[in-house]
Amino acid sequence: MALFDLPLDQLRDRRSSSAEPADFDQFWTDTLGQARQYALDARFERVPTGLTTLDTYDVTFAGFGGHPVKGWFTVPAGTAEPLPVVVEFVGYGGGRGLPHTHLLWASAGYAHFLMDTRGQGAGWSAGHTEDPVGSSPASPGFLTRGIEDPYDFYYRRVFTDAVRAVEAARSHPLADASRTVAAGISQGGGITLAVGGLVPDLAAIAPDVPFLCDFPRAVTLTDTLPYREVGTYLSVHRDRRARVLDTLAYFDGVHFAARGRAPALFSTALEDETCPPSTVFAAFNAYAGEDKQIEVYDFNGHEGGGPYQQAAQLRWLPGALAGNKKEE
Amino acid sequence: MALFDLPLDQLRDRRSSSAEPADFDQFWTDTLGQARQYALDARFERVPTGLTTLDTYDVTFAGFGGHPVKGWFTVPAGTAEPLPVVVEFVGYGGGRGLPHTHLLWASAGYAHFLMDTRGQGAGWSAGHTEDPVGSSPASPGFLTRGIEDPYDFYYRRVFTDAVRAVEAARSHPLADASRTVAAGISQGGGITLAVGGLVPDLAAIAPDVPFLCDFPRAVTLTDTLPYREVGTYLSVHRDRRARVLDTLAYFDGVHFAARGRAPALFSTALEDETCPPSTVFAAFNAYAGEDKQIEVYDFNGHEGGGPYQQAAQLRWLPGALAGNKKEE
Amino acid sequence: MALFDLPLDQLRDRRSSSAEPADFDQFWTDTLGQARQYALDARFERVPTGLTTLDTYDVTFAGFGGHPVKGWFTVPAGTAEPLPVVVEFVGYGGGRGLPHTHLLWASAGYAHFLMDTRGQGAGWSAGHTEDPVGSSPASPGFLTRGIEDPYDFYYRRVFTDAVRAVEAARSHPLADASRTVAAGISQGGGITLAVGGLVPDLAAIAPDVPFLCDFPRAVTLTDTLPYREVGTYLSVHRDRRARVLDTLAYFDGVHFAARGRAPALFSTALEDETCPPSTVFAAFNAYAGEDKQIEVYDFNGHEGGGPYQQAAQLRWLPGALAGNKKEE
Amino acid sequence: MALFDLPLDQLRDRRSSSAEPADFDQFWTDTLGQARQYALDARFERVPTGLTTLDTYDVTFAGFGGHPVKGWFTVPAGTAEPLPVVVEFVGYGGGRGLPHTHLLWASAGYAHFLMDTRGQGAGWSAGHTEDPVGSSPASPGFLTRGIEDPYDFYYRRVFTDAVRAVEAARSHPLADASRTVAAGISQGGGITLAVGGLVPDLAAIAPDVPFLCDFPRAVTLTDTLPYREVGTYLSVHRDRRARVLDTLAYFDGVHFAARGRAPALFSTALEDETCPPSTVFAAFNAYAGEDKQIEVYDFNGHEGGGPYQQAAQLRWLPGALAGNKKEE
Amino acid sequence: MALFDLPLDQLRDRRSSSAEPADFDQFWTDTLGQARQYALDARFERVPTGLTTLDTYDVTFAGFGGHPVKGWFTVPAGTAEPLPVVVEFVGYGGGRGLPHTHLLWASAGYAHFLMDTRGQGAGWSAGHTEDPVGSSPASPGFLTRGIEDPYDFYYRRVFTDAVRAVEAARSHPLADASRTVAAGISQGGGITLAVGGLVPDLAAIAPDVPFLCDFPRAVTLTDTLPYREVGTYLSVHRDRRARVLDTLAYFDGVHFAARGRAPALFSTALEDETCPPSTVFAAFNAYAGEDKQIEVYDFNGHEGGGPYQQAAQLRWLPGALAGNKKEE
Amino acid sequence: MALFDLPLDQLRDRRSSSAEPADFDQFWTDTLGQARQYALDARFERVPTGLTTLDTYDVTFAGFGGHPVKGWFTVPAGTAEPLPVVVEFVGYGGGRGLPHTHLLWASAGYAHFLMDTRGQGAGWSAGHTEDPVGSSPASPGFLTRGIEDPYDFYYRRVFTDAVRAVEAARSHPLADASRTVAAGISQGGGITLAVGGLVPDLAAIAPDVPFLCDFPRAVTLTDTLPYREVGTYLSVHRDRRARVLDTLAYFDGVHFAARGRAPALFSTALEDETCPPSTVFAAFNAYAGEDKQIEVYDFNGHEGGGPYQQAAQLRWLPGALAGNKKEE
Repeated sequence: MALFDLPLDQLRDRRSSSAEPADFDQFWTDTLGQARQYALDARFERVPTGLTTLDTYDVTFAGFGGHPVKGWFTVPAGTAEPLPVVVEFVGYGGGRGLPHTHLLWASAGYAHFLMDTRGQGAGWSAGHTEDPVGSSPASPGFLTRGIEDPYDFYYRRVFTDAVRAVEAARSHPLADASRTVAAGISQGGGITLAVGGLVPDLAAIAPDVPFLCDFPRAVTLTDTLPYREVGTYLSVHRDRRARVLDTLAYFDGVHFAARGRAPALFSTALEDETCPPSTVFAAFNAYAGEDKQIEVYDFNGHEGGGPYQQAAQLRWLPGALAGNKKEE
Repeated sequence: MALFDLPLDQLRDRRSSSAEPADFDQFWTDTLGQARQYALDARFERVPTGLTTLDTYDVTFAGFGGHPVKGWFTVPAGTAEPLPVVVEFVGYGGGRGLPHTHLLWASAGYAHFLMDTRGQGAGWSAGHTEDPVGSSPASPGFLTRGIEDPYDFYYRRVFTDAVRAVEAARSHPLADASRTVAAGISQGGGITLAVGGLVPDLAAIAPDVPFLCDFPRAVTLTDTLPYREVGTYLSVHRDRRARVLDTLAYFDGVHFAARGRAPALFSTALEDETCPPSTVFAAFNAYAGEDKQIEVYDFNGHEGGGPYQQAAQLRWLPGALAGNKKEE
Repeated sequence: MALFDLPLDQLRDRRSSSAEPADFDQFWTDTLGQARQYALDARFERVPTGLTTLDTYDVTFAGFGGHPVKGWFTVPAGTAEPLPVVVEFVGYGGGRGLPHTHLLWASAGYAHFLMDTRGQGAGWSAGHTEDPVGSSPASPGFLTRGIEDPYDFYYRRVFTDAVRAVEAARSHPLADASRTVAAGISQGGGITLAVGGLVPDLAAIAPDVPFLCDFPRAVTLTDTLPYREVGTYLSVHRDRRARVLDTLAYFDGVHFAARGRAPALFSTALEDETCPPSTVFAAFNAYAGEDKQIEVYDFNGHEGGGPYQQAAQLRWLPGALAGNKKEE
Repeated sequence: MALFDLPLDQLRDRRSSSAEPADFDQFWTDTLGQARQYALDARFERVPTGLTTLDTYDVTFAGFGGHPVKGWFTVPAGTAEPLPVVVEFVGYGGGRGLPHTHLLWASAGYAHFLMDTRGQGAGWSAGHTEDPVGSSPASPGFLTRGIEDPYDFYYRRVFTDAVRAVEAARSHPLADASRTVAAGISQGGGITLAVGGLVPDLAAIAPDVPFLCDFPRAVTLTDTLPYREVGTYLSVHRDRRARVLDTLAYFDGVHFAARGRAPALFSTALEDETCPPSTVFAAFNAYAGEDKQIEVYDFNGHEGGGPYQQAAQLRWLPGALAGNKKEE
Repeated sequence: MALFDLPLDQLRDRRSSSAEPADFDQFWTDTLGQARQYALDARFERVPTGLTTLDTYDVTFAGFGGHPVKGWFTVPAGTAEPLPVVVEFVGYGGGRGLPHTHLLWASAGYAHFLMDTRGQGAGWSAGHTEDPVGSSPASPGFLTRGIEDPYDFYYRRVFTDAVRAVEAARSHPLADASRTVAAGISQGGGITLAVGGLVPDLAAIAPDVPFLCDFPRAVTLTDTLPYREVGTYLSVHRDRRARVLDTLAYFDGVHFAARGRAPALFSTALEDETCPPSTVFAAFNAYAGEDKQIEVYDFNGHEGGGPYQQAAQLRWLPGALAGNKKEE
Repeated sequence: MALFDLPLDQLRDRRSSSAEPADFDQFWTDTLGQARQYALDARFERVPTGLTTLDTYDVTFAGFGGHPVKGWFTVPAGTAEPLPVVVEFVGYGGGRGLPHTHLLWASAGYAHFLMDTRGQGAGWSAGHTEDPVGSSPASPGFLTRGIEDPYDFYYRRVFTDAVRAVEAARSHPLADASRTVAAGISQGGGITLAVGGLVPDLAAIAPDVPFLCDFPRAVTLTDTLPYREVGTYLSVHRDRRARVLDTLAYFDGVHFAARGRAPALFSTALEDETCPPSTVFAAFNAYAGEDKQIEVYDFNGHEGGGPYQQAAQLRWLPGALAGNKKEE
């Protein structure tokens, strides 16, 4: 797709029109508080994978509502000392998949914690986490489940799971909690932004082509799924526009970004119709941390920087972590 | 779409390869028994619609798990005596919509009960019934929710709701329970077949281009949604083929058809890629009732006979009901 | 389709660049005068439909050139007194279909007159009216038939039929001519606007997502049929641009709108690529009646408000008619 | 499109199931007789084209109903003696276009007569011939105009025009009537077959990838326009299947083929979804002339042999004409 | 495709942002100088075509690197005196095809020289010229072969071939070198512009909907092939944007246009997504010759004016050549 | 894509109709002999990647014609003893990419050698190997380059490179040559089969959804690229069918399979339109090694088994290598 969004110079100044709900912080404080009433109960079970250079653990922890959430935890074989830990979130529709498909961060010397996304994982990679909560009528997909009330919205559960995933990752003895990084692509990037706004002491975040940002613009700018799910919903429930946008404001990456403080490396792609660059820049420009950068890929769609962005992250992360090394 | 399925003469003999589970009847007896432990609690509330020739009621009743299920009940204005009642089920993704969009049956002198489909109703017409039950990882849509276990499968709840909807419809004083008809298009037709197999004393059924039939063939014959949801699921969870087909066998229209006894008017369309004619004929040929007919539309896709099939039903139904008129 | 036309605030002020032909009124006065030289000869023949709450009549009347034009006339069963009458026109490619597919207006207590569109009715619903007039070379469809001369243009015949349809509807004893309403969707909305400008004493008009408006913009803004037929024509007959636009100016809804006086309820949808919102607003803004409203559907395409707009019309019409009740 | 029709060995034996109407010959004898009651009135007017090696004439003659039909007549500049004449018919949707776009046959030393197709010529090349006859409801395009009655069917007029075009071509002093060839691609090939069956003394015919053959198979085998127009018509008018096929039988190339006697060079392409090879072979196999050949293009769609087939015709035609040279 | 590029009034002023390389002229002087170190060795071999009004020759000459390049040379049969000669270049993916497919210019009294494009000719018409030079990794197609270095770029060879083609055409005794015209459509138009800038004494040029112009805009404005090949390349080689654009600047039609002096007739189409009108106007506006015109086709895509533009050229060329007739 | 190829039971017996050229072995013996006249000159240069568990080397070796071919060689960090070595080939259009994108085999304890594919690597992952050999006219892509002569065909160079890649991999001191495995997906699988037939002492091969098999069926069964490139070529060069198929016979995986002896694990997917299952089974059934297996993925397209097949290979390979461990 050729350039379809704003020109780059306008992107550099782009701000979202999403109004932050007055009780945004209270909503999330309450939500996380409720979740923490359940014991985290993080369990790590070593699994055979056929790999020799890495050790992998099958993880279960209690997420929103105390529901069991799955993940993989991977470290270099024979790791004895705590390592900086990268907590990664998966893109829309996918699950944690098979453990041998996530080798990069551990091969680079990090502890790697991959969170499964509840209910997802039958679109392109296999998931193993149930979402036991039902929904009022919703369009196919996850983005409109419970969309008429922020307390019922699907991503309230997912973002809560993600905060708990950080806590679970940090609970492992091979993870150096002071050097915790959140990262992810697309939906994973949107969750990363949420975690960046909800967990105050992260060492760095790396949201790539993040989803779930600047909803007022996203839902009218692109026809591509999953943002289009909202348009489908409102094309049927024609009288719910205000209510739906009110709900989404509690989950908009731009408001989480305004609460982020950790060093951040974003990425966006100018031909990305799934997560258009103006919505990503809206989050980037709102990001409150001073140490922030964004990689812009001119001729890419939603694949974004792909391995080039991985390389950029491998180069950037050591420096971002330098001031955060655990005192020993 | 030009002819893509079997030629008509082979369709006339088509049988499904789906094997009926040994405990099929037990499964459904147990399921319905559990549902009936909840009071039906059918409530009918008159609503203003702007219509003068018909009266409409907003219906709520207890479906699977006792969960509240919505519907519309419509009768000719001023009806005083019980009428034969048509219980209709909605197509995939739709909800009960607005009441003035369902005028045919009541305008033809029937009581009409339209059941909302739980969780659906944000795809093309608005629904108002929550499905409070969550799911293990599922592909976008409803067809793979809980697909690894018949007890968790989404349609276990829907078919149960449908049986209860018949009971709710019959509970209204303007409905002549002895002349109850089940009808529906596509998913509505699939539900109709299920109801036809689970409710022993229906007066007639009219499944149009029914969905949810002959799964073993359907899921490998067509790429069109929603059958393709199963293929998507299995393309990710590559090792669950047998398990998924085992689950689906408890919900296959061909097995309900083998239990149906009421006079039946089916329809199918030879260019229907959504519910291919071979899968419809598999159900029709399995149908146990002796008084059965099928309308075949040669050049239509999933729209099937549309208003021509409505006309056929208006002509057929009085005769089908003739032997069943309530004794007064 | 995400937003592709002007933003809503610019739509509110949008004006067409179409220049009104100097002899516009003369052209139409002459055209209608010629048609009225043929006896209207409106015949209403009661037909069986299987419906009990409504009575339906098969209508024939003399349209343009005295050619027989078909329609359906429907009233509540047993109507004895004249009712306000809604004259409805059909969308592009469709015909009057089967009588049981048009139940809304009569079920709401109106007399309902549905006009078949000459030559159409083999695209999505069946028509039964011949267009006995041939054409110079035309692109597939109806929009370029005779497009090089306003006297030969297809819609000269259709709009004339429509004016005669109003006269035919009013001729029925159960229709209260003083409370005549014109309505229709898409092409039906475009015809409604034409009728609104050509029939001076209508009680109300309700054009939904009207077609045939603001041709200079429409034919360069959208690729979607049927507007694109003009582009196809001009892509072949590359030297006829001015001539074609001159013809279309005699049929542009914006010029009929400037002559409309009846209370009007329009609708448009912001994602409508078939009849883009800027072309609808051009007509709405040109509409000369003081009592006018427009419903805007944000996330809908050409389906527009669908049943929600029907509901809006059912609520609005009694008030619009209030000052026009026939004196008895 | 990969191979989708029968394998080549089965194509070699393919026969149509179309049953010839008992009064087929009478129908056409009557039709042509009526047309010949109008004077042919062929007029040839020299036009400037900018070409120096060829002379072009703008042609008008009386076709069906005496309606004026246009054409181009082209000969090598300075031709003094009669030349064999190729009468060519245009593909669906096109018109005669501009005269400098038809240079092949005259450049090869033939007189060339190109017939415009009535009503067509706004799809891809410009036409200039009106079809003054209207139609009952028809799907977009020409293939269903008047399709419910052979006397009203559009191609009754076109085939009659074509026979008259041969007569017009032969009437020119530079045309050697004894060496008249009919040729055309797609619709032009279908018309060629009709002419081959209706004009007894042609010297040769060259139908390329002919349309209008073996309707019973064509309309169920392919979704591609224009054959699909029939399916669209029958998807709306669901109860007219037999009637429509009855009409088409009077126009099926397989029945004209059974009357052809001239040497013939057909072509077909195995990936042609517009005019599938089985329908072409049905006509070829039915062709009654003993001297017949067919070129088969394995990897082509409807473009068929293109310039390769032109080359084949240039090589073949002199031999085919050898026995027919006008005695001087 | 509806209007997607700038409005016409802005097109009239459109300028490219492409910066001309400082050594642009040196690059091309060196390149052509190297090519001229090989003997031109133009050979013309008469071939039988079945045509009687024209004579055709199979041409071979030495292009870039001395590599043999093919072509067709066609003149009116029996030509004895030198004629003005039109050198034509082929569109992207095509080859010289069969000789009887290029009849226009010779039929209009010109000598016609058609150059085959090296390596191309297996996309839509057959080519017969090898490109013996390999390439670093390239996207499918020709536009990114050697794109990282102007000396390796594929079009360095093609444009050089084209200059040599002019020399070969002029070398034939039936060509009047003083009246040499360059022409072509799409890629042929882009090559025409290059030749117009590299050959100082052309009599006229006629680039239709030219490709290879205003690369900085073209590669971000359209998704359509072949411009999109550059985007594909850069979507993979994400770090080569500057380098690639630097290479393309040596081949941009806007810089050749700034060197053109011959009378010129351009064409463009406002709906052309392959060679968008803004890129064509950028070249037209940069064109240095005073006698320049552009035909604008409002409703056409990349087919542009087609036969209408041919007619325009036939009318325009005699005048353009009038001042250039060879003195005898 | 639903099932489109043969049913599984017929696939189990499927044989190709490709006839093996009489001089097949001689052709390849000569070809490899010529390549080996150039010194292999395999160079391995350690590169920084940011990874800590693996060491990566940038490889260059002399392939066909002595041309430099690139690759990556990766081993577990600190490897001291020779490891079994997996030589992997890349899918069509891709290059070796960035080194951190190939972590599986080395993480599983193997030496891993990834060969770049000459000329490719600008379609989806970056390549760095030039193909310095040009081509006669070819369709976009690589599959028709030089297709009219086996000596000029592109894959003659690629397969030769691949054999040399095996030699280069074996030349590294950390590779245990006696335990050499060839593997790859799609084109990589086709190359794997070729290597399996050309290198007599491989320890195992693992071709996944292999391309380049059973050309006579493949090129008529699927429209999907890259097989369709052959159809495109022949749709233009309509007279070269036999010649092209003759060339392809020298490169057909079914003939290489008939020469393979190593234990083999194939995979195929029943919905794979790119490399249809019948063409894969044709190779599998022709495979001469006794120890062969094939994984069949029922609901997958060309993605095949993906990570599930990787897992299968990780489980299978140790056993396959068990009898081949280097004697120490």
